[in-house]
Amino acid sequence: MAMAELNLKPTKTHLHSFLSRTLPTHGHCTFSPLHRTTQHARISCSVAPNQVQVPALQTQDPKTKPDCYGVFCLTYDLKAEEETRSWKKLINIAVSGAAGMISNHLLFKLASGEVFGPNQPIALKLLGSERSIQALEGVAMELEDSLFPLLREVSIGIDPYEVFQDAEWALLIGAKPRGPGMERAALLDINGQIFAEQGKALNAVASRNVKVIVVGNPCNTNALICLKNAPNIPARNFHALTRLDENRAKCQLALKAGVFYDKVSNVTIWGNHSTTQVPDFLNARIDGLPVKDVIKDQKWLEEEFTETVQKRGGVLIQKWGRSSAASTSVSIVDAIRSLVTPTPEDDWFSTGVYTNGNPYGIAEDIVFSMPCRSNGDGDYEFVKDVIFDDYLRQRINKTEAELLAEKKCVAHLTGEGIAVCDLPGDTMLPGEV
Amino acid sequence: MAMAELNLKPTKTHLHSFLSRTLPTHGHCTFSPLHRTTQHARISCSVAPNQVQVPALQTQDPKTKPDCYGVFCLTYDLKAEEETRSWKKLINIAVSGAAGMISNHLLFKLASGEVFGPNQPIALKLLGSERSIQALEGVAMELEDSLFPLLREVSIGIDPYEVFQDAEWALLIGAKPRGPGMERAALLDINGQIFAEQGKALNAVASRNVKVIVVGNPCNTNALICLKNAPNIPARNFHALTRLDENRAKCQLALKAGVFYDKVSNVTIWGNHSTTQVPDFLNARIDGLPVKDVIKDQKWLEEEFTETVQKRGGVLIQKWGRSSAASTSVSIVDAIRSLVTPTPEDDWFSTGVYTNGNPYGIAEDIVFSMPCRSNGDGDYEFVKDVIFDDYLRQRINKTEAELLAEKKCVAHLTGEGIAVCDLPGDTMLPGEV
Repeated sequence: MAMAELNLKPTKTHLHSFLSRTLPTHGHCTFSPLHRTTQHARISCSVAPNQVQVPALQTQDPKTKPDCYGVFCLTYDLKAEEETRSWKKLINIAVSGAAGMISNHLLFKLASGEVFGPNQPIALKLLGSERSIQALEGVAMELEDSLFPLLREVSIGIDPYEVFQDAEWALLIGAKPRGPGMERAALLDINGQIFAEQGKALNAVASRNVKVIVVGNPCNTNALICLKNAPNIPARNFHALTRLDENRAKCQLALKAGVFYDKVSNVTIWGNHSTTQVPDFLNARIDGLPVKDVIKDQKWLEEEFTETVQKRGGVLIQKWGRSSAASTSVSIVDAIRSLVTPTPEDDWFSTGVYTNGNPYGIAEDIVFSMPCRSNGDGDYEFVKDVIFDDYLRQRINKTEAELLAEKKCVAHLTGEGIAVCDLPGDTMLPGEV
Repeated sequence: MAMAELNLKPTKTHLHSFLSRTLPTHGHCTFSPLHRTTQHARISCSVAPNQVQVPALQTQDPKTKPDCYGVFCLTYDLKAEEETRSWKKLINIAVSGAAGMISNHLLFKLASGEVFGPNQPIALKLLGSERSIQALEGVAMELEDSLFPLLREVSIGIDPYEVFQDAEWALLIGAKPRGPGMERAALLDINGQIFAEQGKALNAVASRNVKVIVVGNPCNTNALICLKNAPNIPARNFHALTRLDENRAKCQLALKAGVFYDKVSNVTIWGNHSTTQVPDFLNARIDGLPVKDVIKDQKWLEEEFTETVQKRGGVLIQKWGRSSAASTSVSIVDAIRSLVTPTPEDDWFSTGVYTNGNPYGIAEDIVFSMPCRSNGDGDYEFVKDVIFDDYLRQRINKTEAELLAEKKCVAHLTGEGIAVCDLPGDTMLPGEV
């Protein structure tokens, strides 16, 4: 994309007529009121495809401000319009890996209003890489063409210090995929560096109460790295996504019990988003009854249930040829909704959160998936009335040990000294990249 | 997938205990009450991946009944439950090309309730091909894992006579992509045969008032072929999707006028979903005013506006590397919503429909995109108060001529004699396959 930039100082009333008179008419133009108070403005125009002579990005500064995109660069006063007067204040939602497949589902869900409700306007701040910036423009174009009334701002960029500015939600999906033969330790290091950087950026520029959901793997330890690098943001605001595991566990319990999945509740995923994770059938309920009173097949519960839940992603890739972008994005929506709507009575949800203050005897200072409830204000509390038996406790100990080992691997990224990495075998979930 | 089938005649109360006792516990099992009145049942079990010894599908009859999938095979009484008692009667929605990217967005939107509302349970009937049946299982798995409360049945199959059974909506997305060097005439013939077959199937087994939206290209003439092969279904129930074009046109008018897209109304796409289509700026309004009173750039309106709308898909592919699945699925949602919710006063929507009885002087007996309104009952009426000028009329004549020529190309598929094909140059929209 060849960029032409003009630094102008027009008055507000002149801008529209200026735009219609002088901008190149072939190609895509964006008007970006970067400095609203001073009436400075930047107009960025990309020439039409057949006029492009230079390779993409060569003329761009890789550390520019995130650009607003197309129709989303407009300013307007929601309070001045009859239809939008009762709307809440616009919220900023930052999404990393925004050009990827999970985001391609998620962004349209966020924009449609199904996550934050029909009177909550949103701004999407999309973080990509130099490699994906053109793809991000494509995503922004599709968001334009979707005419979502609640989607009022879209900006794209490659610098987290710009994109995360004032973010009230940060959905961190982007991560490097594991290359062939790469060990979990190497992946921890590569992605850990990304999440250290993004934690620093959140610490510097995001809302002081930003809620962060880490999806990029290994998500628990990435979330730990991220929160350690963001000391000015409450550690409890950082989540690692284990909701897809919870959803899959619910579905398998329903299938086994011969009931619809809406009858399954109180399912906890304990621990790491890896093969050491513990889908908890001791506390789970079916139609209000303990699972063991409904599914009287202890062998299935102890052996096949967990395996089936964990193999789900691998089977899906085998069948569909792609990883589970659609259902992952649904589970991200579920995770957000669980924090912004009150948890139904007698139920809870799983989320990987910072362990300090947990009532379950889990080691402190790691990110561990545990049962939580929310009153809908974005915060959560640990559930008190869970029970343990030797089998459950033993498995929780194993996933806890793994997370403690992962933490030692990334000590150089959490400011805790020199990394010492001694991980057990490969515990990546099948079907995850 | 190696299938093991058992034909059983248990009583209803025995089924669940039978299932939990005797089904292979490795792998995926579905219980399919195919003949509910006679209490015959079929149980299909796929063995676990590591047990699969034979290539997929070799043991399957390609014309079997569509199989319900997993947890969606359960039966239950929505009227018996507190939470679901007030729900409407379940509706059957058939989707072809269900393993493709557009469907991968659309199915999750349908299942989430954002299309038909929060008290409308739905059944999804997914039509694939022999090649895509495994992928369809993957889609069904992801739908299971998403735990949508309103999604009560999912079945998959490759025979439209089975999948379209009792369909109240048929969203026909699947079509053969155009191969390299393939002429529009050849594509018309290849895809026309698919839509002739699907029309016959709808005629034989779908709801007598099924609403059909054809997305697969060339969608206008495919819709014509489809309706001609379904004489027992009202021709007015068949639609060709031009809503993405309308949405794109709205966005471009908004961008040019410097207003948010919710200010643009009364946009019509006339004619064919091809490069002869006519985005109508004569009747369109911005903030209630005629577009020409707001955008005083006649050259842009007459030359660049249409071109920009039509090139959008091509630019998107160039940027994102894929075709516009997400925004296409949003436009399908918009198209359905426009038929099931009352059209806002002083507005209308575009849809490609059968021309008989149209008030615009368009030739009868073709499928032509025109401005319509609905009272929300699934039906629609033509808008009366549109104006024409020579420029608009001339361009409408051109797209009309193209559709009449396309109709002659497919006479062998509409029961109207021998095809005579004399099409102008390539009028496929850029970025469409």
